[in-house]
Amino acid sequence: MSGPGPDAATATKVVGNPSWRRMEPPELSPMLTHALDLFYENGFHGTSVRDIANRVGVAIPSLYYHHGSKEGVLLALLEYSTSDMLARAHAADADGGDDPVQRMSNVIEAIVLRMTTRARLAALEGEVRYLSPENRLRYRVLRKGVEDVVREIVVDGNARGVFHTADSAESTRAVLAMCQAIPRWFHAEGRMSPEIVAAKYVDIALTAVGYVSTANPSTRPRTKRAR
Amino acid sequence: MSGPGPDAATATKVVGNPSWRRMEPPELSPMLTHALDLFYENGFHGTSVRDIANRVGVAIPSLYYHHGSKEGVLLALLEYSTSDMLARAHAADADGGDDPVQRMSNVIEAIVLRMTTRARLAALEGEVRYLSPENRLRYRVLRKGVEDVVREIVVDGNARGVFHTADSAESTRAVLAMCQAIPRWFHAEGRMSPEIVAAKYVDIALTAVGYVSTANPSTRPRTKRAR
Repeated sequence: MSGPGPDAATATKVVGNPSWRRMEPPELSPMLTHALDLFYENGFHGTSVRDIANRVGVAIPSLYYHHGSKEGVLLALLEYSTSDMLARAHAADADGGDDPVQRMSNVIEAIVLRMTTRARLAALEGEVRYLSPENRLRYRVLRKGVEDVVREIVVDGNARGVFHTADSAESTRAVLAMCQAIPRWFHAEGRMSPEIVAAKYVDIALTAVGYVSTANPSTRPRTKRAR
Repeated sequence: MSGPGPDAATATKVVGNPSWRRMEPPELSPMLTHALDLFYENGFHGTSVRDIANRVGVAIPSLYYHHGSKEGVLLALLEYSTSDMLARAHAADADGGDDPVQRMSNVIEAIVLRMTTRARLAALEGEVRYLSPENRLRYRVLRKGVEDVVREIVVDGNARGVFHTADSAESTRAVLAMCQAIPRWFHAEGRMSPEIVAAKYVDIALTAVGYVSTANPSTRPRTKRAR
């Protein structure tokens, strides 16, 4: 269920660009790469503009010239990260054709692959609350794009009777939250590959939106329960 | 489904102390209360021992005397927060009697009530990565207690055929992660009461562990799907 294995490849019409599964190193300027490391190590408030400039080996005005402020650096990183995620989510979604289950599987796989292989960028999420209200809004608009992709799939799946959620928007947010938490434990534990985590979370996410696969041995006919 | 309403009260044997629903202001020393505010406003690294001492109105050595270091202050807050959560989770669990669905409902309700009414303490979770490895371990042991409560319920529900998860431990972690994300949006949005959020997340969590309530109009007979 974690992607187009032999079965899925024959069962679904594959459209779109399958490159959403490839995770090359992020294309960031040296300034942003070093800032990302410092924010990860010491937090946004624990990192000064001087720290970043020293680490990159540039003068402080050069940093101000490029990003305006330390907050500008954080915003540039968050915008890069979220745009990359959004592009991958769209490609993964298109790759699932017209099938809500395959679309959901692909998009969750894309999100989890990014959470596990780009942990530093993914962990920046925790620094969003330090953005000014205007910049937070700017970031939220981008991030909402990923939420929109998933919610649209959940709504479609509900309409077709394959998913069953009482509140599609809240279930979508909950499913994204469980994926976003992955960077907090993935590297510390180090016992699962990104692919295995992706497969597990595809299964959990599908269950969370009320999908029951008849092929999945973990799901058996429901016991009727009197309350 | 968000707690023992009239139906649940007659259907399940209520044991334990129902006080887990009451959320009094946290009982923290003035030093910890002010440190919590500062960590929330400026992050752990953005807060100095001097900042905390100034805000409380004590000399710096007094702070070192009580907590050893700034990290000691963070650890004291995390330990208070996690112990409080664990006590509530145990009480909520006991209050659900022998019924995995009611136990799960109660524990998720207890967790969400805390996430929504004690947002500052709940948000501290993001600062855990700044703890030293030994202190992080000490904290994780406490936190694992809450995970153990939920996982034990999921395993029991699976054994009785009312829940259906492929990996109980991972589903437990995912369900807790969606609850832990609530403080990140709850106050910013301000459109739902803690009780409504709790009811929604009880429903989402039960669905996520593969429970299908026959009384829930959002869940219909599953469509058999050929893949």
